Amino acid sequence: MATVFEMIISGDIPSVKLYEDDRVLVILDINPAVKGHALVISKTAYPNFTDCPADTLAHMMEIAQRVDRKMRQALGCDGTNILINNGPASGQEIPHLHIHVIPRYENDGQSLGFTKTKYEGDEISKMGERLAL
Amino acid sequence: MATVFEMIISGDIPSVKLYEDDRVLVILDINPAVKGHALVISKTAYPNFTDCPADTLAHMMEIAQRVDRKMRQALGCDGTNILINNGPASGQEIPHLHIHVIPRYENDGQSLGFTKTKYEGDEISKMGERLAL
Repeated sequence: MATVFEMIISGDIPSVKLYEDDRVLVILDINPAVKGHALVISKTAYPNFTDCPADTLAHMMEIAQRVDRKMRQALGCDGTNILINNGPASGQEIPHLHIHVIPRYENDGQSLGFTKTKYEGDEISKMGERLAL
Repeated sequence: MATVFEMIISGDIPSVKLYEDDRVLVILDINPAVKGHALVISKTAYPNFTDCPADTLAHMMEIAQRVDRKMRQALGCDGTNILINNGPASGQEIPHLHIHVIPRYENDGQSLGFTKTKYEGDEISKMGERLAL
């Protein structure tokens, strides 16, 4: 079953395209967090961040930087969020790798923050041992 | 004035390190969104995503992929969020480029979502013209 992004890439579903090359497509999200919210989509349907080759990811990020610069120039936004949701538990809605680039303004009312928790005792040093690369 | 990350890189402030090479340092966030929350920090103090050279960003993302894989293996998490806050309006707290890698679990109670808005009439096509690369 093709994802909605595969149908957008093939042209079976319309989209507002911002950029396209042989490896990526950039479109506007139709339900934006903030108007101008763009999606950098890999043309190859990698299901998620974990499975994407590093060179493709590097190219996608370079394009995300161009999108960020264009947003600052054309919209005068004060900042951007660059977000990859990786797996359904993280909020990834479509199993086809994409990078969100979201323009942000002072006091735009959007919240992309997260609640914070704390480590107790030696919990953080033990976590560090478990996650050391 | 050195940022807290510069003081961590120089060793003047302690941290729990997960990885280090000549270009990046990976540490645990002491106020994690979810325990295991890691920060991939560029050793050069680029203030934000916009100002980072593409090759450094590519390397940081490759390390973020290694952190993601380690989290899945060592913690058994169901997914991750990869997030760059770019500028104070976006929630960036320290003006020194860093990538958040946050382990996620089904029903972990964390919310990294955002509210959504809608375009009216031809607003989306006009936005597309403004943001086309």
